[in-house]
Amino acid sequence: MATPAAPRGFETLRWDDGLYIIDQTLLPNEYRIIELTDLESIAEAIVSLRVRGAPAIGCAAAYGLCVCAGQVRVGGVQELRAEIERAARILASTRPTAVNLFWALNRMQAVAEANYESPDALREALLAEAHRIRDDDDAACRRMGSLGAELVPDGAGIITHCNAGGLATSGYGTALGVIRAAHESGKRVHVYVDETRPLLQGARLTAWEMKTLGIPAILSCDVAASTHLASGRVQLAITGADRIAANGDVANKIGTLGLAVLCRHYGVPFYVAAPLSTFDSTLASGDAIPIEERSADEVSSLYGTSIAPTVDGSFTIANPAFDVTPAQLVSALITERGILRPPYHEAIRAVLSE
Amino acid sequence: MATPAAPRGFETLRWDDGLYIIDQTLLPNEYRIIELTDLESIAEAIVSLRVRGAPAIGCAAAYGLCVCAGQVRVGGVQELRAEIERAARILASTRPTAVNLFWALNRMQAVAEANYESPDALREALLAEAHRIRDDDDAACRRMGSLGAELVPDGAGIITHCNAGGLATSGYGTALGVIRAAHESGKRVHVYVDETRPLLQGARLTAWEMKTLGIPAILSCDVAASTHLASGRVQLAITGADRIAANGDVANKIGTLGLAVLCRHYGVPFYVAAPLSTFDSTLASGDAIPIEERSADEVSSLYGTSIAPTVDGSFTIANPAFDVTPAQLVSALITERGILRPPYHEAIRAVLSE
Repeated sequence: MATPAAPRGFETLRWDDGLYIIDQTLLPNEYRIIELTDLESIAEAIVSLRVRGAPAIGCAAAYGLCVCAGQVRVGGVQELRAEIERAARILASTRPTAVNLFWALNRMQAVAEANYESPDALREALLAEAHRIRDDDDAACRRMGSLGAELVPDGAGIITHCNAGGLATSGYGTALGVIRAAHESGKRVHVYVDETRPLLQGARLTAWEMKTLGIPAILSCDVAASTHLASGRVQLAITGADRIAANGDVANKIGTLGLAVLCRHYGVPFYVAAPLSTFDSTLASGDAIPIEERSADEVSSLYGTSIAPTVDGSFTIANPAFDVTPAQLVSALITERGILRPPYHEAIRAVLSE
Repeated sequence: MATPAAPRGFETLRWDDGLYIIDQTLLPNEYRIIELTDLESIAEAIVSLRVRGAPAIGCAAAYGLCVCAGQVRVGGVQELRAEIERAARILASTRPTAVNLFWALNRMQAVAEANYESPDALREALLAEAHRIRDDDDAACRRMGSLGAELVPDGAGIITHCNAGGLATSGYGTALGVIRAAHESGKRVHVYVDETRPLLQGARLTAWEMKTLGIPAILSCDVAASTHLASGRVQLAITGADRIAANGDVANKIGTLGLAVLCRHYGVPFYVAAPLSTFDSTLASGDAIPIEERSADEVSSLYGTSIAPTVDGSFTIANPAFDVTPAQLVSALITERGILRPPYHEAIRAVLSE
């Protein structure tokens, strides 16, 4: 079966008198846009990873509150505000690790707390803020791309884990945005794509994006990363992030830590590209970042086929969705306000207070 | 669906007037014994990994020649010898990396080259040699188990990759034999099982063996190994090997190298358990070990569902089945003649010349 074509400038999420997203669980076999029409479907889409990636989750939650606000058709500003608070609480409970979710909900709630003459005025202000969140993300990604591209040598082999691309953001990508910007600037690059078990965002999404953009890419199982690095064909690694603590520790998709350790061993720089919305200055270190444990089914079964014995008293399955890469394994943090180098504590504080 | 029960002392392969194996591609969902009745089915079973694991492949090839010898019903000793040579050439072409295959075929061919009064006498000698190969492997595994168990502290967390268990040998296991011997000696151990993409021998086979033996085990995706090691809950790693060069470099399932690098980073000993039949003293280093590249389909499709875009000019898939761990990342080599420590070149030469 051929991979379905997609518009080159696909929109991960789009507002058109309603919230539309690409259902990412169907990629790469099917490119389908679905509308999220109520709080339940929005929460389900985030939990089920129909929309995923820290910045994209933030955008989806922001627009999600607009959907919910549009459904309240009785009462005044107070009632609407209460409904928004309720919806925000439910959306905040969908996924614990990516801080962009809470950051976006906080921005929206701050808007909701101002004074409005009518429910419609509040609705309008919410939608304007959701658009700003999306536009800010797009601008941040493009800025990270142009800054980060400077770190990419011509002819580079680049390894990446999970999907930190257009599909994980409003459309341009964080880590893949850097790769894309390097490619668009005329540098020859080739990308080693980790498949990223258990949910295969590398194989399903990153490979699809690279192919859609015409950027040469080689997909392999996560376990082949060491072979690629040992071969000398990889000049840098770059990933996104779900939350970055005040000291520069990075929570990202499970396997990021292992890749960072490999890079250190082989003397290959390991970069993280993330907008400031991914930084959580309230956490001193990565130890405090909550790590989502997802269902054992994601490990034990593949498209309906069981691939492991049934769990019992002595046999269990662990499925942490994220890990924490200590700051000392990170060569640089690429943000929209510049490329941060160690010591990160000072660099992060400076850039967040600008 | 419950995992099917298996006899505690399952036999990976068994001779009973014919060659019977467990079809390992069906585990853990089905425990089925199949008979391999001719050269074609034996070669197919090795290529398709119905029987796999370096020592088990050696045993299967040895018994496979007995099957082939039994089918030659015309001519004398010369004709039979020619048929055995032909069958050995075909079996030798099934898989390139595990040296035990060639080692076992060489042992069988050396037997075939002696003088015999009749084809039946040659057949008998071949079967006796195949039994010796199996019995030697069983004895080697049990000896490695008892030697290696000394390296396992009581209460240890042990991480392993792929399947180096009973299913990969004549029945006791190499790496899992060490774990099993430690468990049988009364030590409390718990095993972190890497699922081992692409063919999931960890999830399907190692987890099943651990469960069958009642040894506490935790299955997770390969990418979770770094989290387990970073947590301090893992005291040692142990794997099998497919070929070990004269300098101690170890070829083993793809991902072994990455695990060894992680162990070095976290200060956790990384052990390899392998019988002397896995050593190839003709190769100075691991650089010369041929690495099998398997079909891209193993990466791009899971039980009939496509999980990656279709390959084209700019998008490719790499699927190396093995990698090479340099000797300096190996804390010790556990063999049936003792535990070898660096410098390996001398230790290996000494043990092979005993």
